[in-house]
Parts: sequence; C-alpha cells; structure tokens
Amino acid sequence: MKYAILLSYDGTNYRGWQTQKNGISVQSVLEGAAYAAFGKKVNIVASGRTDSGVHAAGQVCHFSADIAVPAEKIADALNFRLPPDISVLKSVAAPAEFDSNRSAKQKTYCYRMYVARREHPLKSRYAVAVYPRPDIGLMREGARLFCGVHDFKAYCASGSSAKTTVREVFSVGVRAAFSRGCDDIEIEVCGGGFLYNMVRTMAGTLLFLGQGRLTLSDIKNSLELGERALVGKTMPAKGLTLEIVDYGFDLFGSE
Amino acid sequence: MKYAILLSYDGTNYRGWQTQKNGISVQSVLEGAAYAAFGKKVNIVASGRTDSGVHAAGQVCHFSADIAVPAEKIADALNFRLPPDISVLKSVAAPAEFDSNRSAKQKTYCYRMYVARREHPLKSRYAVAVYPRPDIGLMREGARLFCGVHDFKAYCASGSSAKTTVREVFSVGVRAAFSRGCDDIEIEVCGGGFLYNMVRTMAGTLLFLGQGRLTLSDIKNSLELGERALVGKTMPAKGLTLEIVDYGFDLFGSE
Repeated sequence: MKYAILLSYDGTNYRGWQTQKNGISVQSVLEGAAYAAFGKKVNIVASGRTDSGVHAAGQVCHFSADIAVPAEKIADALNFRLPPDISVLKSVAAPAEFDSNRSAKQKTYCYRMYVARREHPLKSRYAVAVYPRPDIGLMREGARLFCGVHDFKAYCASGSSAKTTVREVFSVGVRAAFSRGCDDIEIEVCGGGFLYNMVRTMAGTLLFLGQGRLTLSDIKNSLELGERALVGKTMPAKGLTLEIVDYGFDLFGSE
Repeated sequence: MKYAILLSYDGTNYRGWQTQKNGISVQSVLEGAAYAAFGKKVNIVASGRTDSGVHAAGQVCHFSADIAVPAEKIADALNFRLPPDISVLKSVAAPAEFDSNRSAKQKTYCYRMYVARREHPLKSRYAVAVYPRPDIGLMREGARLFCGVHDFKAYCASGSSAKTTVREVFSVGVRAAFSRGCDDIEIEVCGGGFLYNMVRTMAGTLLFLGQGRLTLSDIKNSLELGERALVGKTMPAKGLTLEIVDYGFDLFGSE
C-alpha cells in the first residue's frame, strides 16, 4: 500500500530534510518513528529536500509499506513517537502511481523578515531582522520580474547538481503588515520547482532592491546574463518556510 | 539616574519574570547582563511578573543606576550579554518619579489558540491547539461580560496574595483568522491590572463557552458569585503574551 502524509516541522534543530552523515535530519527522525510504530523499515520520500534550518508548514511525503494500521491513524501512530518540533498533520492512502516528489505540480515558499535594528525574540525564530526599511512598492516591482520561465543560474548556490537552471516561477507576492512595533514583510514565491538556495537568494535580492543596494535593471540583467554579482545575498535559512505542495488534486481531503 | 527599558522575551525556557529559588528567571538573566555591562549590581523592576512559560512582546522595566553609558546605548550593551530569547528593544532615560510597576495605567495581554486536533510545530510555541472548533460569535458575547469593574475572585488562582480580587477590564477582543489549514484565535484582554492566572482562566472560560461546555449565564454568575466551578480551565502558559504596558505618555518615543 502507498501512503501520503502532510508533515510540518520547525527546522531550527535539524540539518534539513535529508539524512546526513553529521547532525540529525527530519527524515531520519521520521523514519525512526515509522520503524518504532510499524516494526519495519520504511523509506520516506519528501516532495523535496529542505535545507538545514528551513521550516515546513505543509511538506508532503509518501512511503510504501505493508502495515495493519488504517491510513488515517498513521498520523497519530507516528506523532506518538515524534518530538514536538515534527508533527504529521494528516495521513491518507495514496494512489499507487503517486510520488510526492515527481507528482508535485507547484510549491509555495514564504520568506519572512521584519524591519528592526534589534532582534525581537518572539519573531526571530521564523523571520530575519532587516534594516533599514526597504521600499515595499519597489520590492513588488522587482517581484514581477521573476515571474515566468527564466534561467535562474545567478540564484543557484554553487555546487548544485541540477541538470538545468531554468525554472518557472508562477507568482511572487510581497506583503507587509505592522505588528508589535515594526513591519513584518513576507515574500511568497510560488513555482514549479526551485534550485538550491534560489528562494533565499531571490528574497535577498528583493531586500537589496528595496534598500537601494540593487536596481530593477540589475535583476533583469541577473536573469539574462546569469551573473551572481548582480543579485543580493542568500538570506538565512530560519526565515524560509515550505508552505504548500500542490498536486493538482485534493490529496488530503478537507477537514 | 533612572532608566526605562522595553523588553521582549520568549518565556519557553524561563521560570517567569521573578527570580526563583529553582530555575532560571528572566529577571536574574537580565540583572546578570546588567552586572556584566555596568560593573555594578542593578535591581531591575518590571511592570509586573509574568508566570513561568509566559512570553512578553513589550514588557517595561525600570532601574536606577549611576552609569556612564548613554541611555539609548543601554539596549545594545545589555543585548550583547543576553541570550537570543531575551532582548532589550529600546532604552531611555526615565523621569525620576517613573515606576514601571506603579505608574502603569493599562496592560494588554493576548492569548493565542488554533483549532486543530493535532499539534502544529510552527504554531505550538506561542499558541495552544484546541478542539472542537469554538463558536467565535458566542465567545465575543462572553467577552463583553468581562468588561467593566468586577470581582474576579473565580478567575484567580488559589494562594494569591492580592488584597482585593476586584479589577477593571477595559476591553476583551476575540479575533479569528485562517492560516495554514486551520483557524487561529486571539483573545486580547486590556485592563488596569490582573490577578494571578486571571487572563489564562478568562481565555479558558471563553473557549469552554464557545465549545458549549459553559453558558453565558455561567459567566455572569461566576462574576457575581465568585464561584470557581462556573469558569473554564486555566489555559497553558505558552499561549499567553504580555503585549503592551501603557503609562499614559510616550515613554519610549517613536522610531
């Protein structure tokens, strides 16, 4: 039987999704919980890797196993063996051909910042303090330049093994809201797939644009020429969250 | 010289504001940082104690000290010696008669919940999962009953040393917003002062009302008769945040 799970984790204490030689990964903890729950080794495949320190609100995974637990009870069986910073929100039986990675049609990431000269302990776990205040209107103009099919070579960490650096970005939204004495800024990026560090580098580029350290022309040129020197810094992992993975059908049903 | 500081902390790892015999308090860590920064013992007074595990977005403290550091630099001098879950957001010179506790005119607390059968790791640090879904309209009706001057004896933890259990509540707001697959509920309580556990017990009572486990009459009677049996449970500390302390003048200025 094939199963799909909707997974959320606080990435602070993990070296990313994938099992690594040093440091604990979300995958290894989850597979450990599955082994304890089902009494057999299970290989759990995610929609994609998340980097060290990146969070997930709606990661999707699949696995195949011959187990007696009803599909909808798998979530509780796993949660019983998981630490509080990893939780299975839903579990369902999946179509035989379903593959959480290859079947994914669209992914939504959100990068969070707040405008402050000093760290706010209640914001800093999932967002990054930035200063000075960026121009949100300008960031929105820059965001539009990313939409469509582009070669994101300039936004890809060196050493990536991707076959092509061409990706399609469906939308990039920039939201600002005032809370607790300062502005929160959210950059929501929706696309077919992303290169290693791509969303974090897009976020840093939009920030630099809003702060006047880069221009709209720089962004246009970075996409045309693929030059790393024209883009902003790769922002810290803790501000990034994988929000939604979309498969073109309602995999988990509604509550 | 008298100084005032605007302080934020993630209460997860502390046994509340006040220095305790066992466990680390926010006060003891802050006074330790002040000793390291100024080379002298400083007694730091907060607007009020927060309980073990309760957070603060805008706690206000004062202290008197004969130090050479300019008032606005005190924040950075302290932050340099503070862990990431405690941060001084602003520091100013305060009027000689200013007392962060006795001068406070109004405090705003926020209690956060989300409607879910399973814990969400990215919500559960600062909010509590509740199920089944409460009726928000009914919670708002109940919230209105708390406004005004009442004897909150039924909402006070036993063993409190308060001289009187009469308090004035200025407003109670109930907000709901959908995020990441479930409803977030915020109960914002604004008042002249609060008894030990009062806001957490008010939040539990509004939740029980919304879930049909208590009635509007129960709340009316709890305020008239002071009977503990008529109120809901005291909600967990982690959902509570001290948001704002108001002194009737702009103590910290605007950024």
